[in-house]
Amino acid sequence: MHLQERIAQAIKDVPDFPKPGILFKDINPIFQDADLCDAIVREIALQIKASGADVVCGIESRGFFFGLSAAIAAGKPFVPIRKSGKLPGDVVAQHYNLEYGTATIEIQSGSIPTGCRVFLHDDLLATGGTAKAAIELIRQQGAEVVATSFLVNLAALPGATVLDTLQVKANWLIEF
Amino acid sequence: MHLQERIAQAIKDVPDFPKPGILFKDINPIFQDADLCDAIVREIALQIKASGADVVCGIESRGFFFGLSAAIAAGKPFVPIRKSGKLPGDVVAQHYNLEYGTATIEIQSGSIPTGCRVFLHDDLLATGGTAKAAIELIRQQGAEVVATSFLVNLAALPGATVLDTLQVKANWLIEF
Repeated sequence: MHLQERIAQAIKDVPDFPKPGILFKDINPIFQDADLCDAIVREIALQIKASGADVVCGIESRGFFFGLSAAIAAGKPFVPIRKSGKLPGDVVAQHYNLEYGTATIEIQSGSIPTGCRVFLHDDLLATGGTAKAAIELIRQQGAEVVATSFLVNLAALPGATVLDTLQVKANWLIEF
Repeated sequence: MHLQERIAQAIKDVPDFPKPGILFKDINPIFQDADLCDAIVREIALQIKASGADVVCGIESRGFFFGLSAAIAAGKPFVPIRKSGKLPGDVVAQHYNLEYGTATIEIQSGSIPTGCRVFLHDDLLATGGTAKAAIELIRQQGAEVVATSFLVNLAALPGATVLDTLQVKANWLIEF
């Protein structure tokens, strides 16, 4: 069976999460299958190598799962992008708007060197709001985002268009 | 150089985080070294195999980093233990006390089958409060915690004693 089909079979639809009217794509059942996880890690590691990136970033917290594993498999440093207040020491922050209210993501100062080529990973591409904020944060460090990678793209939402506007290549393993 | 020394050299002390008077052990620099990460994953995978566990649990969010990678390397299913409200679908919860206030951790219902043998991973063993809550949550599923694993044990704090009282084996890669 193709990787895409195996992922599609593992992901579960959960209605009304995190709020009424939203059909949530639950990736947690994937973690029950170590062999499938290994195949996903190898696929993302290939994307990392193909991108020519020298650093991999993953976004808290579901981007930490395959982000770090794939970075290790590709032999690249991994930089966690975290929510506000979670990273110790000096940080640089990027604020962005959510449907209601705002959010902030942070990296440790100096963790993304000027001039480096970054591969950005998260589990889900939906509105593209968090990915856009992460790209802006990385670009502010004088670094380039050479590719993004998501387990899932929700095709009805504008994430892919947002990345296109930012002129960043987007990879995903499966689309709904 | 031994793994322990390499980890010790990578971990950075950050004073007054997350609050004044606390000297925080920052593991983030470890992620900058893919080769060191790979060695850590292989070591934890050996611990998993030695424990005879059939499931690996990792605690949000720093327990997700090496928890999933090591589970994949050991060929075992991974179950994320998350903070309240993060997991979709039916969940089972465990409340516990923090220094100020309370916290809640959750797993998805049915994600840890009755009778299974669980290996529990987190980045840091300090007071043991979160680990104890996780062990109680796992035991409530009719499952056994065969071993725990931490990157770091803070020897001045009672975590190791707490696990001893719970009769759970504790592994850590480095102690301060």
